[in-house]
Amino acid sequence: MLPFNITRAAHAEIRVTDFDRARQFYVEALGLLEIDEEDDALYLGALEERDRYSLILRKADSGGVKNISFRVAAEDDLDALARLFSDADLPTQWIEPNTVEKGQGRALRAQSPAGLPVEFFHEMEQRERQLQNFPLYRGAQLMRIDHFNCQVPDVQAEYDFWTQQLGFMVSEYTVSDDPSEQLWAAWLHRKQNVHDVALMNGTGPRMHHFAYWAQDTASILRACDMLAAMRMVDSIERGPGRHGLSNAFFLYLRDPDGNRIELYTSDYIIPDPDFEPIKWKLSDPRRATFWGHHPPDSWFDEASLVEDITTGAFLPTQAGLLSGKPEFAT
Amino acid sequence: MLPFNITRAAHAEIRVTDFDRARQFYVEALGLLEIDEEDDALYLGALEERDRYSLILRKADSGGVKNISFRVAAEDDLDALARLFSDADLPTQWIEPNTVEKGQGRALRAQSPAGLPVEFFHEMEQRERQLQNFPLYRGAQLMRIDHFNCQVPDVQAEYDFWTQQLGFMVSEYTVSDDPSEQLWAAWLHRKQNVHDVALMNGTGPRMHHFAYWAQDTASILRACDMLAAMRMVDSIERGPGRHGLSNAFFLYLRDPDGNRIELYTSDYIIPDPDFEPIKWKLSDPRRATFWGHHPPDSWFDEASLVEDITTGAFLPTQAGLLSGKPEFAT
Amino acid sequence: MLPFNITRAAHAEIRVTDFDRARQFYVEALGLLEIDEEDDALYLGALEERDRYSLILRKADSGGVKNISFRVAAEDDLDALARLFSDADLPTQWIEPNTVEKGQGRALRAQSPAGLPVEFFHEMEQRERQLQNFPLYRGAQLMRIDHFNCQVPDVQAEYDFWTQQLGFMVSEYTVSDDPSEQLWAAWLHRKQNVHDVALMNGTGPRMHHFAYWAQDTASILRACDMLAAMRMVDSIERGPGRHGLSNAFFLYLRDPDGNRIELYTSDYIIPDPDFEPIKWKLSDPRRATFWGHHPPDSWFDEASLVEDITTGAFLPTQAGLLSGKPEFAT
Amino acid sequence: MLPFNITRAAHAEIRVTDFDRARQFYVEALGLLEIDEEDDALYLGALEERDRYSLILRKADSGGVKNISFRVAAEDDLDALARLFSDADLPTQWIEPNTVEKGQGRALRAQSPAGLPVEFFHEMEQRERQLQNFPLYRGAQLMRIDHFNCQVPDVQAEYDFWTQQLGFMVSEYTVSDDPSEQLWAAWLHRKQNVHDVALMNGTGPRMHHFAYWAQDTASILRACDMLAAMRMVDSIERGPGRHGLSNAFFLYLRDPDGNRIELYTSDYIIPDPDFEPIKWKLSDPRRATFWGHHPPDSWFDEASLVEDITTGAFLPTQAGLLSGKPEFAT
Repeated sequence: MLPFNITRAAHAEIRVTDFDRARQFYVEALGLLEIDEEDDALYLGALEERDRYSLILRKADSGGVKNISFRVAAEDDLDALARLFSDADLPTQWIEPNTVEKGQGRALRAQSPAGLPVEFFHEMEQRERQLQNFPLYRGAQLMRIDHFNCQVPDVQAEYDFWTQQLGFMVSEYTVSDDPSEQLWAAWLHRKQNVHDVALMNGTGPRMHHFAYWAQDTASILRACDMLAAMRMVDSIERGPGRHGLSNAFFLYLRDPDGNRIELYTSDYIIPDPDFEPIKWKLSDPRRATFWGHHPPDSWFDEASLVEDITTGAFLPTQAGLLSGKPEFAT
Repeated sequence: MLPFNITRAAHAEIRVTDFDRARQFYVEALGLLEIDEEDDALYLGALEERDRYSLILRKADSGGVKNISFRVAAEDDLDALARLFSDADLPTQWIEPNTVEKGQGRALRAQSPAGLPVEFFHEMEQRERQLQNFPLYRGAQLMRIDHFNCQVPDVQAEYDFWTQQLGFMVSEYTVSDDPSEQLWAAWLHRKQNVHDVALMNGTGPRMHHFAYWAQDTASILRACDMLAAMRMVDSIERGPGRHGLSNAFFLYLRDPDGNRIELYTSDYIIPDPDFEPIKWKLSDPRRATFWGHHPPDSWFDEASLVEDITTGAFLPTQAGLLSGKPEFAT
Repeated sequence: MLPFNITRAAHAEIRVTDFDRARQFYVEALGLLEIDEEDDALYLGALEERDRYSLILRKADSGGVKNISFRVAAEDDLDALARLFSDADLPTQWIEPNTVEKGQGRALRAQSPAGLPVEFFHEMEQRERQLQNFPLYRGAQLMRIDHFNCQVPDVQAEYDFWTQQLGFMVSEYTVSDDPSEQLWAAWLHRKQNVHDVALMNGTGPRMHHFAYWAQDTASILRACDMLAAMRMVDSIERGPGRHGLSNAFFLYLRDPDGNRIELYTSDYIIPDPDFEPIKWKLSDPRRATFWGHHPPDSWFDEASLVEDITTGAFLPTQAGLLSGKPEFAT
Repeated sequence: MLPFNITRAAHAEIRVTDFDRARQFYVEALGLLEIDEEDDALYLGALEERDRYSLILRKADSGGVKNISFRVAAEDDLDALARLFSDADLPTQWIEPNTVEKGQGRALRAQSPAGLPVEFFHEMEQRERQLQNFPLYRGAQLMRIDHFNCQVPDVQAEYDFWTQQLGFMVSEYTVSDDPSEQLWAAWLHRKQNVHDVALMNGTGPRMHHFAYWAQDTASILRACDMLAAMRMVDSIERGPGRHGLSNAFFLYLRDPDGNRIELYTSDYIIPDPDFEPIKWKLSDPRRATFWGHHPPDSWFDEASLVEDITTGAFLPTQAGLLSGKPEFAT
């Protein structure tokens, strides 16, 4: 039994260069709510959420990821997590309440074994839920943040850390086609759906995308309509289509700074702690694309660099240990 | 062969007491576009339309109907129609171009045998269609005006006039249950769908409702969500449900002045001039309500008074010749 | 910390008089999968589920409820639960594996303080999930069982048992309008959404309805279309509409034996254990019906009797302690 | 005024090699109704239609097109059309009633100036409409046949024939980018929507695709789900996406013999005979793909050969007069 309880993916802090262009994309087209604005930060939320925000856009000179943030069930859990990272000789940093991130309590930042910049917090200012405030619905009518998808060079090592040390459970995973069945990718969850985090073999540490959940396929199609009507059609990178893995109906977009967001619906719930994970062979044609056009090269090759939590500089990357170019996904 | 060609139901001019409340209802909740405002008129249009407007809200001291308006294929058709009404000793009135109704050419107003105030015009200023301007989509995302549903005391007589004199075709009709099969109601069209006008046995002349077409059922459900969120839930009078007649998925609303509007989708097209009309017995349980709650009394008993085109006073009404209280509909 | 972990509402065992009529309703119209048939039992499942079944239709001479069944996280949890019920002097009964209910392991049946017949089990034969077997989708395309809604005379006492003894958490609740704010109803969950069980003040012990989750509103509208086309339109009792409480888009149906099922979508997830419950006043007009027609009397007055787990006879009922006729719901 | 009245695109007769595979595709996945089977023909219809069928699959040793068929308003219209084709020295052929095509009256076949094999008929056996027979709905739930899209070498000449001789009206058209604005493609209609026939510059005479109309986007997405689940995912060639031209939400499929079918919804109606056609420049990026992946080469390069109505041999083709490779569409 672990001495802490991570409850869910809670928010991402990403870098953007221009708030007006970002607002066009995230607020106008995708329907996120603009909650707060500071000199160097825009705070956005989604319709079902009560946390003050689920996305922080931080002004910077390029796209990229500052950190991905998870909620824990109690304040003490942060201390237990700090010990865990320290014991593993991984960098940590404490963020004072309501300083860097408005309305958030004490936060622990750390770098995972692969270098992913993660944050944990318990206290967060709540706002009134807008789920039934239908006049606020627009564009893709995004409901809630769902997950982060990350690329790491040694996926087995990172997987061991997240499952054995942090207590994440596996919903689905992908193995190499050869008899050794090496781990290629894994979908890990704390809340009761397919994932809060996915880990992929690939050049990393990088974040491939973060994802918001929409209520139905029509909402996701409307994102396409909005982006096309607003002359941002080039932000559509892949989809719409359906993944075999997770059954998600998906659409991948690039924000004006190249950060990738997935709009996502039609997955399933996992209320059983003993859910038997679903195994996919890497080359199973139904795995990544149950149906949908072949992804462009950019979707395989490009992902967001992540920051060193201490220096704010981008971490250098290494190629994935496993070779091949799968249609890794979700 | 008739010497004129009525092409479609084009717009309604209805009476409202307060533009702000009407705007909340028609623009904010239902998603009509606000095109123009004059001292005593608000001009509204829908997303697919090119005519400058399809609904005129005219300031008055109560709800009610000024006229229902049809487009004709050519300017000369108006003169032919004027002769037809005059020969039948029915009142007519010419409206000068671009006076009472902004952007409309010369218009002929007349009173039908039952007293329905009808208008015909050919020229209408066009506006840019907003069908692909998705940022303008809101609420029920109404696409186009579809039809007018009217109650008259002698439905057979009125039916004869609209079909034999005006050239309307029948898509579906309802007859009394007894062997005499008297005509209870008829759905009449010029454009190629179920109706531009429906005529019903009942206290009249009155307009029961006018209807806009929406693209899908989700749009119509969203109208309910919007009205409830905006504290106008009492404007929902009947539905959602499905009619047997026309197969329409429907929702009936009352605007803040009691005028009734139907939101409507899932009907069918009639490209064949020799389409065999569908006959329904009045008491067929699937006729009016294929499924859906029983309508409230108001839906049967209440309808909008219509104006005398010459005096602007409401016309007196007479009870329908046929007795019974059917669930007449669509 | 409780010595057991109830994970979710898992299946209902209800009484039906005629398998063919029940099959028409549940399989043809609603789209449940027929998994197994025995002389006196039909086993049905839904598209997303892996448990062998989520609904047992047991042949009997009338409708009614044999039991409502919950999964626990481990086999030992059953013993801990047996002690809890015994210590509270509540009736219990052990069901041998794979006897009464096919494919199910050892099961504990018990009667709650109010008399609700509950069952707990851990082991259940799994079947291949049909989530991506789209040729099997039909009618309402039901995804998974969601919750049971029960009426009890003393809701506060039953609430205390389920929350304090069984470990259920509260998502939303209703209190009387007077300053005493007596508990009228509560929505309780173990899995991470609005409820696995709802408890209502009212004549009981009775089950008001059980509910399945559908993926979108269109699936639920299609249930209406199917039932109407199959000449079972009278099985539609209330809806479609939207609840304020839970935000669910709902439809209430009565099966051919009068058992009530809710089709349900558009609720929300609750991944946080410290979710602050939403309080509603009983007379809040948005509480039960955010929008939708007024429910018929049957919806308030009728519910399914429940069996004594030992004798199989129906338990006698008592009126609810609190007076009034709210639109309790969800 | 023309001495005949073509009312609409009515049915296509296409060549398939294997009825079982064709049935899997058209009936199981797309939801067409199987109406009749003969030794060498399968007759299929759609849910809204009353004509006995709208698609004839004729057994042959390869895919291809036998003819595309249009209904006329009266029996005499056939004779007038026969004179028109004869006067233009174009091949014609009379088909006796109820011989080659079951339930169809006397039919005139002809070859257009570009060689397109067209058929005209007036009488057709009617069947009961299945619009409200919801238990028959499956897969893409196709409602009605909509249009034929054909490639011809000299689009201006073919356009002149269809508009001036046959009386088709233009809804939208595409011109070359240079100042000469040569006609590249045109969407022509007789029924009141965007098209019954589209003519494109390209290697011809060939049929690029025929199209069925679906009620909503969800129906079209379900076609993808069905084809993927049935291991026919390779039949998806392009889409889903949205055309600028016609605003259609589209999906292009190849049947097991390579014949191309478009599933299509979200277009608009054209009840006005003086509708001002919409002009697009060939290189307008929003014209063919408002949004959606780039089409594969096959979509540009491949199309169905058409038969000589007299010999049944495929007609030879010629390259299009205009050069370039546009994303011609709809």
